[in-house]
Amino acid sequence: MPEQPANPTPAHNDLDSMLSRKFGKEVANYFSGSPLNRVGFLREDHKFLSQALQHPSTSFLVCNELQPLIDKAEKDKSPKKVGGHLKFIGFDDVKAVVGEDPYAGGEKTMVEQYDSRRYIPQMIFLGIDEKAKDGLEYQSKNLYKGAPYFAVDVTPKEGVKEACEKLIKDLEGRGLAFSQAPGGRVMDIDAQHAAIYAEARALLDWNARNPFCAACGQPTMSVNGGFKRICPPKDSSRPDDRPSCVTRKGISNLCFPRTDPTVIMAVVNSANTHLLLGRQRRWPPHWYSTLAGFAEPAESIEEAVRREVYEESGILVGRVVIHSTQPWPYPANLMIGAIGQAIPEGEKVDLGNDPELDDAKWVPFEEVRESLRVGTSGLGEDAGPEYKEGGLRLPPSTAIANQLMTAVCNGFVGGSAKM
Amino acid sequence: MPEQPANPTPAHNDLDSMLSRKFGKEVANYFSGSPLNRVGFLREDHKFLSQALQHPSTSFLVCNELQPLIDKAEKDKSPKKVGGHLKFIGFDDVKAVVGEDPYAGGEKTMVEQYDSRRYIPQMIFLGIDEKAKDGLEYQSKNLYKGAPYFAVDVTPKEGVKEACEKLIKDLEGRGLAFSQAPGGRVMDIDAQHAAIYAEARALLDWNARNPFCAACGQPTMSVNGGFKRICPPKDSSRPDDRPSCVTRKGISNLCFPRTDPTVIMAVVNSANTHLLLGRQRRWPPHWYSTLAGFAEPAESIEEAVRREVYEESGILVGRVVIHSTQPWPYPANLMIGAIGQAIPEGEKVDLGNDPELDDAKWVPFEEVRESLRVGTSGLGEDAGPEYKEGGLRLPPSTAIANQLMTAVCNGFVGGSAKM
Repeated sequence: MPEQPANPTPAHNDLDSMLSRKFGKEVANYFSGSPLNRVGFLREDHKFLSQALQHPSTSFLVCNELQPLIDKAEKDKSPKKVGGHLKFIGFDDVKAVVGEDPYAGGEKTMVEQYDSRRYIPQMIFLGIDEKAKDGLEYQSKNLYKGAPYFAVDVTPKEGVKEACEKLIKDLEGRGLAFSQAPGGRVMDIDAQHAAIYAEARALLDWNARNPFCAACGQPTMSVNGGFKRICPPKDSSRPDDRPSCVTRKGISNLCFPRTDPTVIMAVVNSANTHLLLGRQRRWPPHWYSTLAGFAEPAESIEEAVRREVYEESGILVGRVVIHSTQPWPYPANLMIGAIGQAIPEGEKVDLGNDPELDDAKWVPFEEVRESLRVGTSGLGEDAGPEYKEGGLRLPPSTAIANQLMTAVCNGFVGGSAKM
Repeated sequence: MPEQPANPTPAHNDLDSMLSRKFGKEVANYFSGSPLNRVGFLREDHKFLSQALQHPSTSFLVCNELQPLIDKAEKDKSPKKVGGHLKFIGFDDVKAVVGEDPYAGGEKTMVEQYDSRRYIPQMIFLGIDEKAKDGLEYQSKNLYKGAPYFAVDVTPKEGVKEACEKLIKDLEGRGLAFSQAPGGRVMDIDAQHAAIYAEARALLDWNARNPFCAACGQPTMSVNGGFKRICPPKDSSRPDDRPSCVTRKGISNLCFPRTDPTVIMAVVNSANTHLLLGRQRRWPPHWYSTLAGFAEPAESIEEAVRREVYEESGILVGRVVIHSTQPWPYPANLMIGAIGQAIPEGEKVDLGNDPELDDAKWVPFEEVRESLRVGTSGLGEDAGPEYKEGGLRLPPSTAIANQLMTAVCNGFVGGSAKM
């Protein structure tokens, strides 16, 4: 390779344009496409975290019971379904909740001083926006420049109850509000904010769900900017009461966030004319989607697709191709979108194996295409004005199911996919 | 759709031939391609599990400290590196360890009678082999026919120490032995047995790692044929001592096995002439492989590929396409294999961000191609007879890294992938 200049800083938000300029379009699903560089290798560096926390360019996303602060004024301006904005606040706002310098003293000291009685509001270091002007400059082995982002749990409880209540009241006084999305599922903010919120929500939720060690039953603590939980060897509040724990020897996956791989698949029949769709009991009338389910341990995604389709619909799938993926932070899923084709001997729908679905059926491409045009919406919402009652209803473009159906209707199967 | 006869029973082991006959070849990586139908919807059905356990066609894979019983005679017959066989035993052999009918009474009764003091050796219901003759016939909503497979943990400990020791001695007397694979990583058995072992190992290990509830710290119990752990509301041994637990309300992912999505990627340069390879410090001299790392919460696989490559090598990747996936039961990974292409502005190797790798470099396709021919082997093994000292060494064909490099050398990038 010829000698080259060092790479420019990886302005991740520039990649999109580079990609489409040179390599053609990649399907980037909702909740992906974050503008932040996570600089995960700096998460253990408390000198960095401490500077990042207090820098004037730093943004804080506060969440109350996992619901993010929303800029209502911005949201009301947007006539689109997806166009709301998160509202970020500054260090002066959150100081009373998180303290002047929670990262003082380094991670090792924090672990040594661990006290299970002390409630520490959860903070997540989300990354830096390298496009921002006047960001923090931090020299590690390389120089990193950008505006830091943190998430903070401001749910009023334990030792910070009053500070959180005061902050929330103050924010409401400024005309701000926490999202009240149906079912707690925020799906109406713009794509870059959605990706930032997904990271915040997934990590806040994982920390909240795992206060105890699954290996020994003792309380654990959050480290690495919220990306790791460890089982500390000592507890100031119970000096003689920590048993030895296997997670302290070597590396244990129990210390790291959990992400559950999920398969979601558009299955076409062998003639490539019909799409397999299914519906759950709790969905509105006429509403269908692609089949989906959790991958199990020790199966490939391709096998998981065939197993799930067989279990839920009786259909036997042959070839499987992975199309794209979507992070899904409700609570911790990675949706792996695939396109599969049924084998001719296995096209008969049979709901008798696992009675999970209310119905599954083959739908002609034309009908899917028409519904993608007039019949999509979020689950709690009305379809568009052109929708006629009784017609097929489908999920919105923010759902990977919609992207998979669109790909099939655009000739994915039988066509050729250029790299 | 025209009316069709019901689908044939999904003899999963026939799919391979159907696939290649009609849809072209799909890359099936080592540890995938199980011959078993997991019939997961029958895992809660103790009437089924009880019959399956005691049926004459049933096979038991016993593991001691996660190492499977191996048929040494069969293994010695095979001159190939991958050709060993698991040795399955019958119910009469394991009865003294697991008891006459551990599934008697149903799951609800088992939960009601939960006693945290009582050690129950872990059993996993793996599935049924529908190709086997004289298998169990079981009528649920549909009729299922096949030879059942179970895994049993026979590690000598707690209340079954003596029974396990006796069984192990007995098996050794028959010339059988537990695998002594280097690092405990079984990689030398034939592909179908490898897939069965992967399922057994992943589930035995997950149960063993999670004896306590991460939400409340209390001991948990294994249900659903080993595929679920719940936090029971009562404990016979401590009648007043179970706090309420959030995992008992609705569905909690903490109850289900954990699978960690991992990205592994063959990255080519923008001219499509060189492949990016890296090496870890602990690897033998001249040994390289593709880069890899864990996916983080709330990022797409495509984003995880770009982040990991940037962190480990400084290279900036544009377009990413997912190639195939591989279950990896050490301990619970799902390897998602991708192929990516660097952008022209980001081809300079820089190990300074995250000093995880000993080296990373661009290697011409011809050199990779030659090494795939003469320089592959398992990590603890010698390369083939044609290998010349100093030449590039690469992982064996059982590793997805090898399959990704092979795909790139065979023209994946720039070519077209037919569905």
